[in-house]
Amino acid sequence: MTITILLDIQTYLFNGGRKIEVITTIDEMQKRADGWRQSGKTIVFVPTMGFLHEGHLALMRRGREYGDILVISIFVNPTQFGPQEDFETYPRDFERDRRLAESVGVDVIFAPQNDEMYGERFQTYVSLEELPQHLCGLSRPNHFRGVATIVSKLFNIVKPHVSIFGEKDYQQLVIIRQMVRDLNFDIRIVGAPTVREPDGLAMSSRNNYLSPEERRSASVLFQSLKLAQKSVAEGERDARKLINAASAHIKSVPHTQIDYVTICDPETLDDVDQIGGPVLMALAVKVGKTRLIDNTILKPKGN
Amino acid sequence: MTITILLDIQTYLFNGGRKIEVITTIDEMQKRADGWRQSGKTIVFVPTMGFLHEGHLALMRRGREYGDILVISIFVNPTQFGPQEDFETYPRDFERDRRLAESVGVDVIFAPQNDEMYGERFQTYVSLEELPQHLCGLSRPNHFRGVATIVSKLFNIVKPHVSIFGEKDYQQLVIIRQMVRDLNFDIRIVGAPTVREPDGLAMSSRNNYLSPEERRSASVLFQSLKLAQKSVAEGERDARKLINAASAHIKSVPHTQIDYVTICDPETLDDVDQIGGPVLMALAVKVGKTRLIDNTILKPKGN
Repeated sequence: MTITILLDIQTYLFNGGRKIEVITTIDEMQKRADGWRQSGKTIVFVPTMGFLHEGHLALMRRGREYGDILVISIFVNPTQFGPQEDFETYPRDFERDRRLAESVGVDVIFAPQNDEMYGERFQTYVSLEELPQHLCGLSRPNHFRGVATIVSKLFNIVKPHVSIFGEKDYQQLVIIRQMVRDLNFDIRIVGAPTVREPDGLAMSSRNNYLSPEERRSASVLFQSLKLAQKSVAEGERDARKLINAASAHIKSVPHTQIDYVTICDPETLDDVDQIGGPVLMALAVKVGKTRLIDNTILKPKGN
Repeated sequence: MTITILLDIQTYLFNGGRKIEVITTIDEMQKRADGWRQSGKTIVFVPTMGFLHEGHLALMRRGREYGDILVISIFVNPTQFGPQEDFETYPRDFERDRRLAESVGVDVIFAPQNDEMYGERFQTYVSLEELPQHLCGLSRPNHFRGVATIVSKLFNIVKPHVSIFGEKDYQQLVIIRQMVRDLNFDIRIVGAPTVREPDGLAMSSRNNYLSPEERRSASVLFQSLKLAQKSVAEGERDARKLINAASAHIKSVPHTQIDYVTICDPETLDDVDQIGGPVLMALAVKVGKTRLIDNTILKPKGN
């Protein structure tokens, strides 16, 4: 923690104390990106929906290592929310975000307006056929279509060489990698590890919704992943047994309702029955009204 | 015609007789594009499926006016053909295409392999919700999804500043413009007028399929558009009457079978009943087994 803060101060001084810049129009962002590219600078991009937490800041610190100009976007993207979801109430605090982004050496915040991003007669979507038919895609139809579409748009606007995504949203990361490969975006995608609270809860802007009692229950997601890791280390290879044990553990905690607990192939997301190599264990649990997700890679010994 | 040839010779000499270059891999094409962009060059791009004719060459001559580096692609794109359509038999002649492209001053032909363009597990598509629900989209489901997807891919590979599309494929042009706007491709789209045979038949690689007798019938597409233009000039404003007259004319010619004859808004492609301003008249007709399309803008006087 102390080291992190020292590095942040160093980054700030290295930037000559230069103020972070906020760009709000697509045209201006594209012109600036062209300018940086023409002068040989490498652009690194971290897309966010704002309300930044340590998890986002870790992506940005990571991003600083990959290039010259670090751009983040702050945009709560309507097309990735379902009609019953929390688009309207999603937490927003731009001034706080700006300060936090500045503290880790972000050069530019791209914060566009909804009207410019989704103009009249907007009708073009980027979608994947298979990867969204798993995990969160099953209970959030059109969510990943919204994600793939906004990320494509942001890639065309910010024109990055490198873009950083968190492993906490593992399915999103896999989908973005596939989309980049399929549509030939000339962009390197870097995944970054999940940042956790002291009790293991994965950082998320939505943790903010939890009551103190729900917050205590929420650590069960991480606990049940640890439980599975332990069982695998002890020799368990039957995915069904691991899933049942994790599910029973989650159900034993108040305020929880399981959406899914899955063990699957880390690339295709197809279900796995017997664990013969590294697999993804992913889960989504409602704690009170708040839907939380988490995941880990389970590695049997010798892999 | 003579003037055109003289201009082509001039272009060739201006290029210092430099040979056209053929690039076949995605990686190489992207690296070259980056290099041109870094040195401040403007890239102009004309996507084609090859078997070039005067219509394509007109797009390329047009393209030469818009920038420094003129790239064309030659790729018969499988995802825009329906299962009953002519993907396998679509005419191909790379050597002839290379000579023709060179004659109009093309710098680079990008000719990728199918396997590299659509790798294993390919699953990402770009699609539009409304514009394909008209005209050719009705009898060719998924055609425009295939077009939007391949054009997105080619844009990400060739990285052009400007791209030229023919007005003969009018719905395609409107769809590409909308896609560029919606996904924020930083690319200027230029439409270029249809090039016609002496009897008015719009140039198309598929004209090649016509028997001599069918070829004579094929001029009815252009004739029926001219008929409508004349009626509008004489004061007709009722779209239904214009469509009926054109349809009757087409049916009077042997070997023809109408897919559609439509009068619609040139931007939204929504049907128009009364002609109050410029409208698009578009038609698709099977002549023998060959499906041909054509269109024109009908302008009432004073518009």
